[in-house]
Amino acid sequence: MSRIFNFGAGPAMLPTAVMEKAQKEFLNYNDMGSSVIEISHRSAEFDEIINRCDSLLSELAEIPPNYKILYVHGGAQMQFSGVPLNLINYKPARKATFMLTGNWAVKASKEASRYGTSINAISSEDASFSYIPKWNPSDLDLESSYVHITSNNTLYGTRWHKFPETGDIPLVADMTSEFLSRKIDINQFGIIFAGLQKNLGPAGLALVIIREDLLGHALPETPSLLNYKVYEEQHSLANTNNTFAIYMMSLVLEWLNEQGGVGKIEIENSRKAALLYDFIDNSDFYEGTAHPDHRSIMNVTFNLSENELLSDFLEQARAAGLYALKGHRAVGGVRASIYNAMPYKGCEALVDFMREFEKDRG
Amino acid sequence: MSRIFNFGAGPAMLPTAVMEKAQKEFLNYNDMGSSVIEISHRSAEFDEIINRCDSLLSELAEIPPNYKILYVHGGAQMQFSGVPLNLINYKPARKATFMLTGNWAVKASKEASRYGTSINAISSEDASFSYIPKWNPSDLDLESSYVHITSNNTLYGTRWHKFPETGDIPLVADMTSEFLSRKIDINQFGIIFAGLQKNLGPAGLALVIIREDLLGHALPETPSLLNYKVYEEQHSLANTNNTFAIYMMSLVLEWLNEQGGVGKIEIENSRKAALLYDFIDNSDFYEGTAHPDHRSIMNVTFNLSENELLSDFLEQARAAGLYALKGHRAVGGVRASIYNAMPYKGCEALVDFMREFEKDRG
Repeated sequence: MSRIFNFGAGPAMLPTAVMEKAQKEFLNYNDMGSSVIEISHRSAEFDEIINRCDSLLSELAEIPPNYKILYVHGGAQMQFSGVPLNLINYKPARKATFMLTGNWAVKASKEASRYGTSINAISSEDASFSYIPKWNPSDLDLESSYVHITSNNTLYGTRWHKFPETGDIPLVADMTSEFLSRKIDINQFGIIFAGLQKNLGPAGLALVIIREDLLGHALPETPSLLNYKVYEEQHSLANTNNTFAIYMMSLVLEWLNEQGGVGKIEIENSRKAALLYDFIDNSDFYEGTAHPDHRSIMNVTFNLSENELLSDFLEQARAAGLYALKGHRAVGGVRASIYNAMPYKGCEALVDFMREFEKDRG
Repeated sequence: MSRIFNFGAGPAMLPTAVMEKAQKEFLNYNDMGSSVIEISHRSAEFDEIINRCDSLLSELAEIPPNYKILYVHGGAQMQFSGVPLNLINYKPARKATFMLTGNWAVKASKEASRYGTSINAISSEDASFSYIPKWNPSDLDLESSYVHITSNNTLYGTRWHKFPETGDIPLVADMTSEFLSRKIDINQFGIIFAGLQKNLGPAGLALVIIREDLLGHALPETPSLLNYKVYEEQHSLANTNNTFAIYMMSLVLEWLNEQGGVGKIEIENSRKAALLYDFIDNSDFYEGTAHPDHRSIMNVTFNLSENELLSDFLEQARAAGLYALKGHRAVGGVRASIYNAMPYKGCEALVDFMREFEKDRG
């Protein structure tokens, strides 16, 4: 069977080696005569899996010892409620500051306003979120309990290259579409969270990394299974967690380790992105949509100069084994999501296709 | 490879035919050259899966048209918060009545008390939850927004054979460990919910079936992704859902359909349970722990008359391919969970083992 190149934004392509390993042991994990999805989350075998996940994450992301790793139900969007429920009470004014660089930050800001006051500090909505606005740290409302950013904007193909300086106020980053794709200094952040379904595994779960002093501030109305302290105290097993997602993540992390870790994959990701951006920049037929200074290396967004050719482009791409290139319904155009699992040759195949398409139709 | 008989309470054994189908197409769903876990929750292919789930559920459980089917993050325990957040505001007194027939109802009652007043109407805690107490409908506090029961008590091996009559007050049932194992009349209930990991699929998701007039009463502090109305409006895809769990459930439902549906499987489940209970009742070496009138057909709990033999029993059972028979840590003893996927011959193998063990050690 030939695997397609899947440019979908998420649930996204996973490394083929990971998928093959999971398939092989799907009915018989660890010679137990049972699947990993059929065993107790409290079994010795699952304990080994979740511990392996913890230690691989600690090593790959260089997570300092004063940070806790949690596996939280509901994906990243559930944390749009989880973060304010756990942290907006950190300072008595119950304020949180949001950097509106895309749709997800807008959603997170709205959700937080159920529990306190959301301050929208900057926004690039006027230009379809195509850039990361400048922000002056002296503008920060010092009554803020935290500052929320989306570090990589999946829909618009932008990212924060350098993160905002928020001093003593915890910086919270939604890193769903880029966690473990580039080296970052965890110490800059109070909370990092990421839905798994882009770079880490299958959908339905979020990874939450939290500085330990930020635990224990949850509002009284916080559901137990959104209380990060409950997760921390019970090693994310207060109830039956999404064991399949944690297992798959452990395989993805092992694979990433075998690739040489985050530093190595960042170089590879930059090469992949450069191949696409260089081609787009040298073409009159394709137009990049993100500001060149703020381009993501995970999601490459562009338009065709002749928009009426878009549906032909997408259809022919799919026929050529290049899947899910359609931009998000809120944005349109083309989006190539090139997460860690996308091989360089996938990007080459896309560039080849784009060149041919331009030749035929341009 | 030989599959063990897995008596674990959940995550539990799934039908081997389902597991084999999922394994076969794990890297190549529907000839797409991609796994089902790698495709968008908004793709035509996934749309087909979730629609199939809906229609199979409607048919198998005979769900009336005025009920909505939701796939909600976080498993059953998340609904211990989700139900009060959505329904305790149904009447202005913000009260909910709980029938304490086990640990899960106790937890649900405590969680609901964050959002209103929990009334604990009956309890069998004095007798280790080994029976379902009598309840007089005239005792019902008519200011209650709903009445909560656990229809089958996984830890203690009891179930409600006949459900309480609550008149106009919605009856909410946590059916995690028995949904689709016996015929029930959905019309008796306002909400039914069930974590998937026992009879329906892998862990991490809950099925929620709700009478449509009970939607739209959520408290303002309800997280969007715990608001059942949001799920209903967006066909459970307000964010990226646990697509793997929904896919696996669709396969389990197809399998159940092929077995002849709920009526047929209930007969089979009753036969399986009778085999075990009859053997236990005819033995002096084994003692059933649930009151005979309230016995579950999903979880068969018993003790050895000589408790010091328990660890030998469990160890030798495991060596004989009978896995995860240890009772819940809150209860001890032995528990054989015999959900839909457990074949009759698994129960025969257990009885054979029990007979031999008694002969050797009794």
